[in-house]
Amino acid sequence: MAGGTRAEGALLGIDLGGTQVKAARFSPSGEREAVARADSPAREDAGAILEALLAAARELFPDGGPAGIGIGVAGVLDIEEGRIIQSPNLPALSAYPLRNRLQSALGGVPIRMMNDANAAALGEFHAGAGLPFRSMVLLTLGTGVGGGIVFDGKIWEGAAGVAGEVGHMCIQAGGPLCSCGARGCLEACVSGWALVREAKIIASRNPASPIASMTDLTPKRLAELALAGDAEVRALWEKCGRMLGIGIANLMNLLNPEAIILAGGLAQAGPLLLDPARKAWEMQAFRRAYVSSQVLPASLGEWAGVRGAIQPFLS
Amino acid sequence: MAGGTRAEGALLGIDLGGTQVKAARFSPSGEREAVARADSPAREDAGAILEALLAAARELFPDGGPAGIGIGVAGVLDIEEGRIIQSPNLPALSAYPLRNRLQSALGGVPIRMMNDANAAALGEFHAGAGLPFRSMVLLTLGTGVGGGIVFDGKIWEGAAGVAGEVGHMCIQAGGPLCSCGARGCLEACVSGWALVREAKIIASRNPASPIASMTDLTPKRLAELALAGDAEVRALWEKCGRMLGIGIANLMNLLNPEAIILAGGLAQAGPLLLDPARKAWEMQAFRRAYVSSQVLPASLGEWAGVRGAIQPFLS
Repeated sequence: MAGGTRAEGALLGIDLGGTQVKAARFSPSGEREAVARADSPAREDAGAILEALLAAARELFPDGGPAGIGIGVAGVLDIEEGRIIQSPNLPALSAYPLRNRLQSALGGVPIRMMNDANAAALGEFHAGAGLPFRSMVLLTLGTGVGGGIVFDGKIWEGAAGVAGEVGHMCIQAGGPLCSCGARGCLEACVSGWALVREAKIIASRNPASPIASMTDLTPKRLAELALAGDAEVRALWEKCGRMLGIGIANLMNLLNPEAIILAGGLAQAGPLLLDPARKAWEMQAFRRAYVSSQVLPASLGEWAGVRGAIQPFLS
Repeated sequence: MAGGTRAEGALLGIDLGGTQVKAARFSPSGEREAVARADSPAREDAGAILEALLAAARELFPDGGPAGIGIGVAGVLDIEEGRIIQSPNLPALSAYPLRNRLQSALGGVPIRMMNDANAAALGEFHAGAGLPFRSMVLLTLGTGVGGGIVFDGKIWEGAAGVAGEVGHMCIQAGGPLCSCGARGCLEACVSGWALVREAKIIASRNPASPIASMTDLTPKRLAELALAGDAEVRALWEKCGRMLGIGIANLMNLLNPEAIILAGGLAQAGPLLLDPARKAWEMQAFRRAYVSSQVLPASLGEWAGVRGAIQPFLS
């Protein structure tokens, strides 16, 4: 780590997302000992968010504070300054000097911040499915699509900390509009919200589809319909899987990482998504690339980020 | 370098491509002193290719051999073994132990091999447009599209040496068929051969187009037609530029390198290609990514590869 700090005591890992704050206490060697979670006070001011983090610290460390705190934050960060530059999901924190404020409140404890997707990638790399590998790309398939790139054991941040935006790689020029304003991004073709968008199109074209009468249109419900044999919904997953396979093939041909790790709720759809994905990457990637880049499920689930966040204190 | 060899005398750099062998003598500090070139005996056997390389060595080193030889080869290599695994452009060299044979013929001189696109990237990085940067992607826009990725001063080879295949990143799912067998690759949308393919479509649809009567349909001629005001051909370059911009945006969002360096004949088309490309990457990439990843022309021209090939002896 840049500061060279090494924690002697227990560590606090925090994953500060748009909907939840997850936190965990870790032993000095990185074993998770206790967890806490709270709703993210995303609509409130920065002070309320700071208070939620302090509450998690007090809950997990009732007798004296942590030796170090690692925080993964959804947003673009100035890592050197410990400041959030921009966070669409936590607008109150934009330009907020989170590290300094937290440090003041907790008596100068060392704090390291990183992007939440990078934190999840580091967590899987050091303590999860990425353990056997030296290079890895994490692809988080949830409501949106995020990711992180690890080369030679280190997160690749890029020139301005933007690297690893795997969800915003265009795979279909002129394709569907993405949350980022561009078109045809992987996220616009494969995410939870993209699936729901496509399902709504099915419902509008075919009022007899069971989708048309659904009140809770979620990827999970769409997976159930496909597994129950609905041909239209099955085709929707197949298309989604093909697009995922193209995105994975791009990572193979560009980066040929030792592993591509799939995390997030959508990855739970299993063969429904992965069978067409595999067909697509075997069509699209160089054989030498896809036989040397393994595609594997993540293993830390929702706790990857908190684990990755404390990594700077361990290595 | 892996072997730790450091040349005391002059060095020989070779760029072994499908159509030409380029070679140059370099001072021990990497200054180019003399060059030689010959047609690649691509259709002949491996012995003829070996002889062409030896002839270049004799021409450039009439009095005693080089202290080290670096070779960039078009193909997939086993770098440790100094063997060419597969080379579509030099089929006679597939599975040929080039390094050992050359070494035997030249009395055990140290030889380092690398992929030719990686050699060009290393050349631009250490002695060309990439000099001011720590991370860089080279994009070579020629008949095909190649590339190389430099992170923290080193070529990113990937798990099996396939990394950097920038031309085979899909930007248009289900798009035009590529030379690699996949669809919608950057090369299938932006290369010299893709431009010619699109021009032929124009000619077949519109016999009045000046393209229809052309006997030498090349990107250079197509650039002349566009600059002379042909609206159809100008639209063709614009589309090509937009697709290039999408590919560049992908590199920005995924890798956010300090620089993206454009080389190759097609890059000579200048604003015809780059104006629409810039518009596309400003639409498609995150602002923070495109303001921090500079796009620049290469500066070593066709000699980037020979310069990069000797880099292992200099660093």
